[in-house]
Amino acid sequence: MTERKVFRTLLSLEEARNRILEYFSPQPVGFEETPIWQALGQTTAEDIHSSIDVPGFDRASMDGYAVRANDTFEAEERHPVKLRVIGTIEVGDESGIEVRTGEAAEISTGAPVPKGANAVVMVEHTQRKDDQLDVFRPANPSENIMAAGSDLMTGELVLRKGERLTPREIGLLSAIGLERVKVCRRPKVAIISTGNELIPVGGSLSYGKIYDINANVIASAVTECGGEALLAGIASDTIDDLKQKVEAGLEHADIVLTSGSTSAGKGDLLYRILDSYGSPGVIVHGLAVKPGKPTFVAITRGKPVFGLPGYPTSALTIFTLLVRPIISRMTGRQETEQEERVVAKCASRIYSAKGRREFLPVHLIKDETGSLLVYPTTEGSGAITSLAMADGFIDIPEETQFLEEGEEASVQLFSQTPILPDLVIIGSHCVGLDILLECIRRSDPSFHSKIINTGSAGGFNAIKRGEADVAGIHLLDELTGKYNLPFLERYGIRDTALVVKGYVRQQGLIVAKGNPKGINGIEDLLTSDVSFMNRNRGSGTRVLFDLCMKRIANERKTTTERLVSKVKGYEIETKSHSAVAAAVSHGKVDAGLGIRTAAEMYGLGFVPIAEEHYDFLVLRKRLEKESVKAFLEALGSAEFKTQLQRRAPGLVPSEETGTILS
Amino acid sequence: MTERKVFRTLLSLEEARNRILEYFSPQPVGFEETPIWQALGQTTAEDIHSSIDVPGFDRASMDGYAVRANDTFEAEERHPVKLRVIGTIEVGDESGIEVRTGEAAEISTGAPVPKGANAVVMVEHTQRKDDQLDVFRPANPSENIMAAGSDLMTGELVLRKGERLTPREIGLLSAIGLERVKVCRRPKVAIISTGNELIPVGGSLSYGKIYDINANVIASAVTECGGEALLAGIASDTIDDLKQKVEAGLEHADIVLTSGSTSAGKGDLLYRILDSYGSPGVIVHGLAVKPGKPTFVAITRGKPVFGLPGYPTSALTIFTLLVRPIISRMTGRQETEQEERVVAKCASRIYSAKGRREFLPVHLIKDETGSLLVYPTTEGSGAITSLAMADGFIDIPEETQFLEEGEEASVQLFSQTPILPDLVIIGSHCVGLDILLECIRRSDPSFHSKIINTGSAGGFNAIKRGEADVAGIHLLDELTGKYNLPFLERYGIRDTALVVKGYVRQQGLIVAKGNPKGINGIEDLLTSDVSFMNRNRGSGTRVLFDLCMKRIANERKTTTERLVSKVKGYEIETKSHSAVAAAVSHGKVDAGLGIRTAAEMYGLGFVPIAEEHYDFLVLRKRLEKESVKAFLEALGSAEFKTQLQRRAPGLVPSEETGTILS
Repeated sequence: MTERKVFRTLLSLEEARNRILEYFSPQPVGFEETPIWQALGQTTAEDIHSSIDVPGFDRASMDGYAVRANDTFEAEERHPVKLRVIGTIEVGDESGIEVRTGEAAEISTGAPVPKGANAVVMVEHTQRKDDQLDVFRPANPSENIMAAGSDLMTGELVLRKGERLTPREIGLLSAIGLERVKVCRRPKVAIISTGNELIPVGGSLSYGKIYDINANVIASAVTECGGEALLAGIASDTIDDLKQKVEAGLEHADIVLTSGSTSAGKGDLLYRILDSYGSPGVIVHGLAVKPGKPTFVAITRGKPVFGLPGYPTSALTIFTLLVRPIISRMTGRQETEQEERVVAKCASRIYSAKGRREFLPVHLIKDETGSLLVYPTTEGSGAITSLAMADGFIDIPEETQFLEEGEEASVQLFSQTPILPDLVIIGSHCVGLDILLECIRRSDPSFHSKIINTGSAGGFNAIKRGEADVAGIHLLDELTGKYNLPFLERYGIRDTALVVKGYVRQQGLIVAKGNPKGINGIEDLLTSDVSFMNRNRGSGTRVLFDLCMKRIANERKTTTERLVSKVKGYEIETKSHSAVAAAVSHGKVDAGLGIRTAAEMYGLGFVPIAEEHYDFLVLRKRLEKESVKAFLEALGSAEFKTQLQRRAPGLVPSEETGTILS
Repeated sequence: MTERKVFRTLLSLEEARNRILEYFSPQPVGFEETPIWQALGQTTAEDIHSSIDVPGFDRASMDGYAVRANDTFEAEERHPVKLRVIGTIEVGDESGIEVRTGEAAEISTGAPVPKGANAVVMVEHTQRKDDQLDVFRPANPSENIMAAGSDLMTGELVLRKGERLTPREIGLLSAIGLERVKVCRRPKVAIISTGNELIPVGGSLSYGKIYDINANVIASAVTECGGEALLAGIASDTIDDLKQKVEAGLEHADIVLTSGSTSAGKGDLLYRILDSYGSPGVIVHGLAVKPGKPTFVAITRGKPVFGLPGYPTSALTIFTLLVRPIISRMTGRQETEQEERVVAKCASRIYSAKGRREFLPVHLIKDETGSLLVYPTTEGSGAITSLAMADGFIDIPEETQFLEEGEEASVQLFSQTPILPDLVIIGSHCVGLDILLECIRRSDPSFHSKIINTGSAGGFNAIKRGEADVAGIHLLDELTGKYNLPFLERYGIRDTALVVKGYVRQQGLIVAKGNPKGINGIEDLLTSDVSFMNRNRGSGTRVLFDLCMKRIANERKTTTERLVSKVKGYEIETKSHSAVAAAVSHGKVDAGLGIRTAAEMYGLGFVPIAEEHYDFLVLRKRLEKESVKAFLEALGSAEFKTQLQRRAPGLVPSEETGTILS
C-alpha cells in the first residue's frame, strides 16, 4: 500500500461551492439550432422577438356574418335588421370581398374579416333565406373579432434568454412561425471510472472484480439534468492510463467527472496529474460532510474536474450537491431548487453521524392521509440495494445529533421525476405476493408498489414504525405452535395492527432435480457431504429451521450450537426463496429450506418439512389508504385464488383468505 | 359553408374514457434493447433477475488487516495480540494469499478477503512495524466484511416488469453487469393538423393564414409523456388529402392524432373517412366538457384516432385528459397521477361556464408563505398568450357555478416539469425592468420570473388580488398631477400595498429616423397624413395620451371623442413600448407614444412629451417573500443604476430609487 495522503483542510460544502465559483463561472458553452419541438426541455440561448403580428389579420372568433357594426345598431329580437349576403369567407380564404353598408358576408371561425366589416354577428343571432339575412341583435365594433397583432405584435419579446422550453413555449415559437430555435448546447460531461477492480457492464467478472456501477448511474444523472454524457471508460490506477483518460476528457468535454480512487491510497496519482497542468489545479481536497470526505475538485485548462466517491450512493449524493447545479447552470436553465425537494415528516427519531454534517439517504412513504413520512435507508452505503431504496437524502447539520420524531425534513430527491409508491410492502418474500400485485395492476396499471425483503421480523418492525403499509409474515410461535397472531402482543402492536389471512405454504428442503444425494429430511443435513444454504436471520423460514435444529438437539441431548456447527453452510445467509432455489439450481449448494413454489419454478426437487401460514400484517389506520384497500380487495378476490392455484402449486388459499383474523 | 353536423350525444369525459377502453386496450407495443444508461425514463419490458452474486466475493469494507477472528479475541488496548503480516491485498487483486492462525494480510477497502480470514481489523486499531502487527481490539467474525451475495443474490428479482428507469434502477442493472436492457418501445404517434388556413412553421404566411401551432405543441407533449412523435404535416380540407394523411398515419404509427376541423362544418369529412374503414369507426363524437365539445375518437384498423380541438389551449387540455393516459400506458409506465397535479388555493372567486363541466386554464403563483394560489388566465382560449400563461387547468363540475375564494383546487399541470416562477410581475412594461431582472439573475442564475404585460391599471388590480408580487406602474393623477401614490386610495389598497420608488422615464412620440414627417408634438397627429399606433387601455402611456387629448380638446373647445376621431389609428392598440417602436421601424405607422429608450433601441427619432414616474407596487405582506426581497435589493443597488444609465439613456434613476414611498 502506498503512502496515505492526509486530508489537511476539509472544506464545508459552501466553502467548496464558493471556491469553485471563484475559479470557474458556469455559463452556457455555446448554442445550437434545433427544430422547435425537438428542443423540449432545452433553454433559449437568446431573447426571441416576434417578426410578425399574431394573428396577421383581423380574425373572426365565431361562425356568423361579417357586418358593419353601424348597420346593426337598431336590431331587435322583434325587429331584425335586414342585410344582403354578398358572399362567403372560409378559413384561409383570401376572398377580396368588401362589405358595404347594408351588406354582410358569411364567415367561419378563424377566417379573415373582410374589408369594410368591423364586427361579426354570431350565426345564432341571425336567420337567413337565400341572400337575405335577418340580424336580431346589434353588434358592437370589434365584436367577435380578434384584431391583428392583438395576441402578439411584431417586435414583441416572446421568450427571454434562459427560458426552458415546455410545450407551452414551443406553442409560442410556433405561433410566430419559428422553425428552429437557438438553444444552449448541452454541456458535455466526460465520465471516467477509476479502480483496478472495475469491469465494464457486459464484460465478464473474474475473482475480486465488480461491475462499474458509477459510470452508468452518473451518466444517466447527467442526462437527466440536461448534460450530454460521454462515457470515457475505466482507468486503471496507473499514471499513464489516468493521464490519458483525463486528457481525452479535457479535450472533448466541458466537465470531467471521475469516481473512485479518491480516498487515501493510490488516489494520490490523480491529484498529482491534475496539479501538473498548472494553476489552479486541485482547489478542493476533502469535504467535511458525510458521505463525501474524499471528494476533490480541480480546475484544469479552465475546465472543472470533479472526483466523486466510489460508493454509488455517495457518488450520486455528491453529484447532486456539487456537480448538478454547475451542469444546470451550463445548460442555461433557470432551475429552481424546489423542484427537486419535498418536505416530509420524520417517522421516528433519526440519528446522525457525530461531528460531521451528514447527507443521510432516506426513503419516503405516504401515510393514510397522503402526508409523506421519511425513513433512513437501512443498508450500508456500499450496497447497491441501498441506492435502490433511497429516494433522496436529508441534510443534518454538524451540531444536530438527531431529528425528532414528527419533525419536518426537507428531502433532496435523487431523481427529478421521482416515482413514489402507492403501497410499501416490507417483510417476508413470497412469490404469491408477486402474483397478487400482478392482479392489482391488471385492473389498475398505474398502481405502483415498492417491496423490501427483510423477513418476517423486519416486517413486524416496519409495521410498528409505520414504514410499511403491509408486511408479509410467517412466524411460528414455539410455545403455542401458532403462526403470526401471538407476535402482535410481543411486538406491542396489538391495538394498532391486525393480521389478514393469507394462504398456507409448504416449506421444505429444496434439493437438486431427482434428489441425487437422497436427502429425506433435516437430519440428513448433518452428514458431511451435504452442503446447505441458510436464510437470513429474522426470516420466518430461518425461525422454522432453527426450531427444527432445537428439536433435534433436544432429542440428541446436545446443544443447538454444537448441532448447527455440523450443518455445512449454516452461516451462509440469503434473502429469498428464489435465491435459495437459484443456488441449488446452479449447483452451489445441495439443499436449502424454502417453499415448494420456488423449487417448482426452478424445476428442482422438494422434500416437505412443514406447513406454514403466510399472512399479512396491516396497520389499522392505514386501512383507510386507497392502496391498502385495493390490496385487501385483490387478496380476497376469486381471481387471485385462481391465479395462485394455477401458477403456484405450493401455495394454498382458503375460504378465509383476505379476511381479518384479529 | 357546408351543412352543419349536429353533436347528438355528447359524452361525459368518463363515458368517453370507458368507451375507448371497451374497444382498445392500451398495452406496450413491443420492446427494444437499449444500453442501460440511455434507457433513462423508459420502462422495463420484463422481470429482471440477477445472474450473479453481488459482491461476487467476500469484500473488505474498511482499510485494515484480514485476520482470523479467533486470533484476536484476547486483544486489548494495553495487551495487543501480535500477528505476522504475510502480504498485501489490493482492490481487484487475485492474490492467492491464505491467512493461517497467527497471520494477517494487509487489505484495502473493496479488496477480496483472503482464504482463511473471516474478519477485517480496521487500520486504526493496529500498529505495524515491518511484518509485525499489533492488534488492539478484538474482531468479531464477519466484521468489516460484505459477504458474497449479501447485496444481491444469483436468481434474485432485481427489477420488475413495468418499472421506470431512473439513475437508481440503472445502478441496479449496472451492479448485475447488464449492458443492455429490454424496455418497452415508445409508442409512435402520428400528428396531423387540418385546416386550409395553416402554414407550417418556417413557411411564409399569405393573408388569412396562420402558422400551425398544434403540431409542435402536441409533438412535444407526446415526447414528454414518453411517445415518439411523427409529424405528418398539414392536411387540407379535402377528402383525398385527409384520407392519404390518415392512412399514412395508421400505417406507420400506433396512435393517430388530428387537430382542427373537428367542429361542425368541414369536419364531417374526417368522420366519414374514419367510418369508411369499417366497425367500430367513430366511437366518441363530442364531449360534454368545455373546452372539447368537438373532440372525437375513432378506432380504425385497431388503432385509436383522436380528433382534438383547433385552439392550442383546448387541444393541449383534451390531449392531457384523454390521450396522455393512453400513451403513458402504452409506454408501460406505472404513472401515478399525483406527479402532474398540485393543490392550490383559489385567490378569488372563480366563475365557471354554466351547464357544462369546465376545464379552466389557470396560472399559479406562490404567496409569501410558499402556498400556491390559483388564478384563471384572462386571455381567450384562441390566444396563444393564453397558453403561454397557463400552468394547467382545474376541473369544475357541471353543477358548480363558482369556486369560492380560499377553496382548494387541484390543478392538473400541462407540463410534467412545470417551472413555477419565484416572482410574478404584472403591470406596465419597461425595458428597465428587463435590465433589473438581469441584475438579479447575474447573482442568482436560478431566479425565475414571470412577466405579464397588462399596463399600469392591470398592475394595480393584480396587486389588489394578490396575483402579482410586484407591479410596474406609471399612472398620472389628473387632479393632483402626481404619479402612482394617489391610486393606492382609489384601488382600495392603501393599507395592504406600498409604492417603491423606481425611476423617471421620458415619454414622447417615437417617429421614424430623422423624423421625415416633421412631427413636433401631439397636435401633429391630428393632421391627416400621419398614422399613429395607440397603446392598450389601462396602460399608463395610454392614460397620458388620453390626458393630452383631453387638454387639447379643452383648448379647442371640442369633445375628446371628436378629437380622437381625427387621430388615424387611435383604435389600434398594442401592448408594449417595443411593439410601438417595432411598428414605426417597420414603416407600419408614422408615430406612437412611448419611452425614449424604446426609440433608441430601434435607432428611431424621438419627440419628448413628458417625464413620468415609473415605480413599483408591492403587497406589504409579500415583503417577506425571498424573491421580493431580492427584487427590492437589486432595485436599490449601485449596479442596477450603472446598468440603467449605460444601457437605457431615457431612464433616469435617483438617490431614492429602491426606497419605499408610502
